[in-house]
Amino acid sequence: MRVVATTETPVAVVGASGYTGEELVRLLLGHPHIDLVAATSRQLAGKSLAEAFPRFAHQKAAVGLKFSEADPKQLARDARIVFLALPHGLAAEFARPLLAAGTRVVDLSADFRIKDAAIYKEFYGRDHPAPELLGESVYGLPEIYRDQIRNATLVACPGCYPTSILIPLRPLIRRKAIDRRTILVTSMSGVTGAGRKMEAEYLFSECNESVRPYGVPKHRHLAEIEQELSNLAGERVVIQFTPHLVPINRGISTTIYAEISDAVVSLDPAVVFSGAYGQEPFVRLLDAERLPDTKNVAGTNFIDIAWTIDQRTHRIVIMSAIDNIVKGASGQAVQCMNLMLGLPETVGLI
Amino acid sequence: MRVVATTETPVAVVGASGYTGEELVRLLLGHPHIDLVAATSRQLAGKSLAEAFPRFAHQKAAVGLKFSEADPKQLARDARIVFLALPHGLAAEFARPLLAAGTRVVDLSADFRIKDAAIYKEFYGRDHPAPELLGESVYGLPEIYRDQIRNATLVACPGCYPTSILIPLRPLIRRKAIDRRTILVTSMSGVTGAGRKMEAEYLFSECNESVRPYGVPKHRHLAEIEQELSNLAGERVVIQFTPHLVPINRGISTTIYAEISDAVVSLDPAVVFSGAYGQEPFVRLLDAERLPDTKNVAGTNFIDIAWTIDQRTHRIVIMSAIDNIVKGASGQAVQCMNLMLGLPETVGLI
Amino acid sequence: MRVVATTETPVAVVGASGYTGEELVRLLLGHPHIDLVAATSRQLAGKSLAEAFPRFAHQKAAVGLKFSEADPKQLARDARIVFLALPHGLAAEFARPLLAAGTRVVDLSADFRIKDAAIYKEFYGRDHPAPELLGESVYGLPEIYRDQIRNATLVACPGCYPTSILIPLRPLIRRKAIDRRTILVTSMSGVTGAGRKMEAEYLFSECNESVRPYGVPKHRHLAEIEQELSNLAGERVVIQFTPHLVPINRGISTTIYAEISDAVVSLDPAVVFSGAYGQEPFVRLLDAERLPDTKNVAGTNFIDIAWTIDQRTHRIVIMSAIDNIVKGASGQAVQCMNLMLGLPETVGLI
Amino acid sequence: MRVVATTETPVAVVGASGYTGEELVRLLLGHPHIDLVAATSRQLAGKSLAEAFPRFAHQKAAVGLKFSEADPKQLARDARIVFLALPHGLAAEFARPLLAAGTRVVDLSADFRIKDAAIYKEFYGRDHPAPELLGESVYGLPEIYRDQIRNATLVACPGCYPTSILIPLRPLIRRKAIDRRTILVTSMSGVTGAGRKMEAEYLFSECNESVRPYGVPKHRHLAEIEQELSNLAGERVVIQFTPHLVPINRGISTTIYAEISDAVVSLDPAVVFSGAYGQEPFVRLLDAERLPDTKNVAGTNFIDIAWTIDQRTHRIVIMSAIDNIVKGASGQAVQCMNLMLGLPETVGLI
Repeated sequence: MRVVATTETPVAVVGASGYTGEELVRLLLGHPHIDLVAATSRQLAGKSLAEAFPRFAHQKAAVGLKFSEADPKQLARDARIVFLALPHGLAAEFARPLLAAGTRVVDLSADFRIKDAAIYKEFYGRDHPAPELLGESVYGLPEIYRDQIRNATLVACPGCYPTSILIPLRPLIRRKAIDRRTILVTSMSGVTGAGRKMEAEYLFSECNESVRPYGVPKHRHLAEIEQELSNLAGERVVIQFTPHLVPINRGISTTIYAEISDAVVSLDPAVVFSGAYGQEPFVRLLDAERLPDTKNVAGTNFIDIAWTIDQRTHRIVIMSAIDNIVKGASGQAVQCMNLMLGLPETVGLI
Repeated sequence: MRVVATTETPVAVVGASGYTGEELVRLLLGHPHIDLVAATSRQLAGKSLAEAFPRFAHQKAAVGLKFSEADPKQLARDARIVFLALPHGLAAEFARPLLAAGTRVVDLSADFRIKDAAIYKEFYGRDHPAPELLGESVYGLPEIYRDQIRNATLVACPGCYPTSILIPLRPLIRRKAIDRRTILVTSMSGVTGAGRKMEAEYLFSECNESVRPYGVPKHRHLAEIEQELSNLAGERVVIQFTPHLVPINRGISTTIYAEISDAVVSLDPAVVFSGAYGQEPFVRLLDAERLPDTKNVAGTNFIDIAWTIDQRTHRIVIMSAIDNIVKGASGQAVQCMNLMLGLPETVGLI
Repeated sequence: MRVVATTETPVAVVGASGYTGEELVRLLLGHPHIDLVAATSRQLAGKSLAEAFPRFAHQKAAVGLKFSEADPKQLARDARIVFLALPHGLAAEFARPLLAAGTRVVDLSADFRIKDAAIYKEFYGRDHPAPELLGESVYGLPEIYRDQIRNATLVACPGCYPTSILIPLRPLIRRKAIDRRTILVTSMSGVTGAGRKMEAEYLFSECNESVRPYGVPKHRHLAEIEQELSNLAGERVVIQFTPHLVPINRGISTTIYAEISDAVVSLDPAVVFSGAYGQEPFVRLLDAERLPDTKNVAGTNFIDIAWTIDQRTHRIVIMSAIDNIVKGASGQAVQCMNLMLGLPETVGLI
Repeated sequence: MRVVATTETPVAVVGASGYTGEELVRLLLGHPHIDLVAATSRQLAGKSLAEAFPRFAHQKAAVGLKFSEADPKQLARDARIVFLALPHGLAAEFARPLLAAGTRVVDLSADFRIKDAAIYKEFYGRDHPAPELLGESVYGLPEIYRDQIRNATLVACPGCYPTSILIPLRPLIRRKAIDRRTILVTSMSGVTGAGRKMEAEYLFSECNESVRPYGVPKHRHLAEIEQELSNLAGERVVIQFTPHLVPINRGISTTIYAEISDAVVSLDPAVVFSGAYGQEPFVRLLDAERLPDTKNVAGTNFIDIAWTIDQRTHRIVIMSAIDNIVKGASGQAVQCMNLMLGLPETVGLI
């Protein structure tokens, strides 16, 4: 007999009509210790979750819960944690009153990831909407900030590309095993990464049979990647990063290159990665014969990591795969929520 | 009124059952100055081209021509040029008697691309089957070796990845605009690049919704890429190269990075590329607002090239797209044949 | 001023920004006896064809010709034939002045396909915009109306589904080989069939890994299918038809069922189909071992047809495949144009 | 030594290397009341489940359990239920000794679905390997045979197509609401339906951008479909059925047509379906505005059903969608197992 916790934490999702919102709904509806009390969407208001997302049609909670218009006051009354799945620039409007009312916030946009409002402006082309909250926010990557996330009031979940890059690079940067000036990253993302946007370039016939780079050379995610790498390195890190769009629904495949530091006599990445991540519940280190494949992580919160040292070039090549809307967004947000609530980190995710 | 050349050159394709063979057949059947007199395949022998490849069913020549078993003597009698579309290691067996009989050979395998038999052995794991022919062969990349191809008896068509890498890098290497020690390449290939092989990893359900690196860190194409870059540079070039498999039928998307040479005061890639390729019939230089997309080159012999200079990292990023079995294989082979026959280079290809 | 060869007919495309418009541009640019003098699009006005459609970037005509706003007077002056690639309801506005000015019109919308304005209203939900032109229009299916098309001033090109259904059924209906009350059709269409529309349901991630029926039970194309079948039968024919959306770019796969007429003693479909279509340039009748596959007709103007008689059910099953935007739209339009101009029917299409 | 909870039933999977085997492993590893004690595969013997199927790499049970060669005696000792995921013709060899030893068997092949050995021979081209067991087997479709499955020793799980056809048709056949002579079915299947077979026609580049009928007119699944429909009708039912292959990994979309019986004055399918399936845990009846889409059932054990009555043709059109390897194979097998073990039917499946 399964013992059910008598107390389910009430949570809400603001902006639940997009892919990350829908995935949050999926994870929260299936979470044993959570009660999804509200999902907001201007566009879907009045429809039940089951009507909007037919894959949830068998779930009573999805039939019973209707999308509503977002009302911060109401949300603050009803929910202990509110997830914001909004485009950047809009999160502050909700975060401010929610935090003021004592409701904790997990934001999935870029708005609270970048600590420096000037860099935010450089990359996002607008003044930061709530610079006073930047000091409060914690970057929601449990593999780096687990302890801070537990007590955070405002968690800024990382972008999908940064997640696929920062986890692999962290132990190498920390140990100064690689030359920080030589880091170069190529990523390939599935099309859900673009969101449920009405733009011609994301129509089926424009993406199918198409592979293309975009956002060259200064994709917005660079801002947070370099911020976090610099924090890890203790000095400013500037990297090269090129994203590509590939015709899959879900998944990011990332390949990272860096020269091994001259100071390193002998680098055994297996030791480095096992030391760093042997106990991490969502990091899977692949053996020498296997390389990451997006299909092995699709629908999961795992990051698969493999590496090789190229003796010819004195570089390490590190490859990772994640599901861009699970570990790259909504799964990570739930992982953070579990930490914030003192729940086992994997509950509702494995 | 269209004037038809009275003399059509007889040519043959050996190993015509794979994707490159089928594409050669398509191009040669449509070529106004060519008569396809033989197509060989052990597996399809006795079947007509139309039966084997239903997309050609309306073409009289495809209905009339049956696949045969390959017989070098017969081929030498019947054809003036023979295309070899065989796996590496098998081409020599045909090339030797054909060349001896005075028939010119266009080989699409790797066998005659690498000038140094020792490097061939290093990368292909076997002794070279005909080292005495290596001196005779010309690397079949018209953008570099146009004049030599005209008179060649044995043309070794480049691999698909090398084509997508060498054409973009050539003018920069020649001018010493980039630091040759910093060249790094990521490529994504469609699944026809793996050939029509019966291997589980290329089944639809293994490739669909999958993106994955492979051949890390020493893919076989590195041998010819570095050979040709070294020739261009006049000194040994070693590069980093990672191929990935993506779920499209046709296409290679390649992204190349290199640091700009310290000696270069100011680099204007538009000038460099226009100077090098302004007159090339199959090189399309994209303007600043457009990046290469495999769907724009699918089914064509074009290579689309774009670039950007990242001032933050002092690197140039060059992006290219080709169809891996046209410009990356069979189209390029026909381009070479046109040169060998003194025909306009684009005939049958545009 | 561009000098036009005296033997090239000037034509124009109105509404050239969609998939059928783009495909028309592709076919007309490659047509040896045609001069594309105008392509109109409100949205793309001012851009060159090469800018809008990078796959044409190497063609001088595509670089030189800019999209313009549609002006019927100007079009009538400059072009002898004007193609209308507009949504239904808009074609009349152009057809009327063009025809009045003596310019011939090939319309790819549904507006002039249905001879009965009442049926048009029933299926398209609006009054017919130019009922006075319905008598003039010829249904642009050369396999049925070849002779009328030659002299037509207004050709109404069939829809993609109707093309894939009418050609297979015609010889059977004509001979009364099947019971007209038992005709049942299932079709599967690639996503370009939906046009370049900004609707969420056609985004990559909504179509990829999705197969779904739609337009049940009364898809608009039924109107013209039943009109034409009734014409062929000499009595009213009502059929069952269900379209499905499948994740491919191009192609329609259609499977048709009908009971063999009681009056028929012995039906040899091979004889019937060969008799009807043995000389048709774009109809390929498959042998007994082969079934139609959209990939064999993609990019071509062919329709592949196969059949089988199911002795268990006394039904004939007929299967066809076409490219929905070539034989199902733009290729067929060019085929009609060739007839209208007295050119060989296949020129520019094979 | 692994300590097994006393309340977990030990089960085994024979032939676990294919897609249905892999999916069974996934479901059984995640099932709270099951202990997967053996998984057999000649080809993978010696490898752990985690090595063979990297998506399970984080599961201790998958790391700890190695594929073994199938040994019926050992299996009978270790498992209370054995799943056979073998090609047809091979299941009898295992079923016979297992049943003799008192182990219950859930067979996913066609071998025990067809009650009449002569029909088996007609459709499968060989003598039935164990006709003496045919009387014992129960057709594993819980929506029809729930009670018999509970006590069955040998369950023959239905094919994927039959599942998508029989569930929708059952209530209409039972009530004689439709004319059984007019049933006609078109189905579209994802490529996992073909299994993990090394055949060229299932390579990525042969399936991608391809839609094609196959198995016309007498696909093997017809045998069991007609057997079960005849059982429901109480008289012999012969139907028309055409399967198609479409480029998705998972999913079957089925569209069924039948004429409404003359005897029926007024048919309200909503009442019929709600009456039949309102309480079924895995049947989701869609409202009038929604049609089944494979993407909504992918990865689940649901069947989505919608319908419409076409007044023009007096036919009902019923549409269904399932995941071919969950409700169409392995999920259904687990659903049967739950019934056999007296567990809640949905455990491990929702």
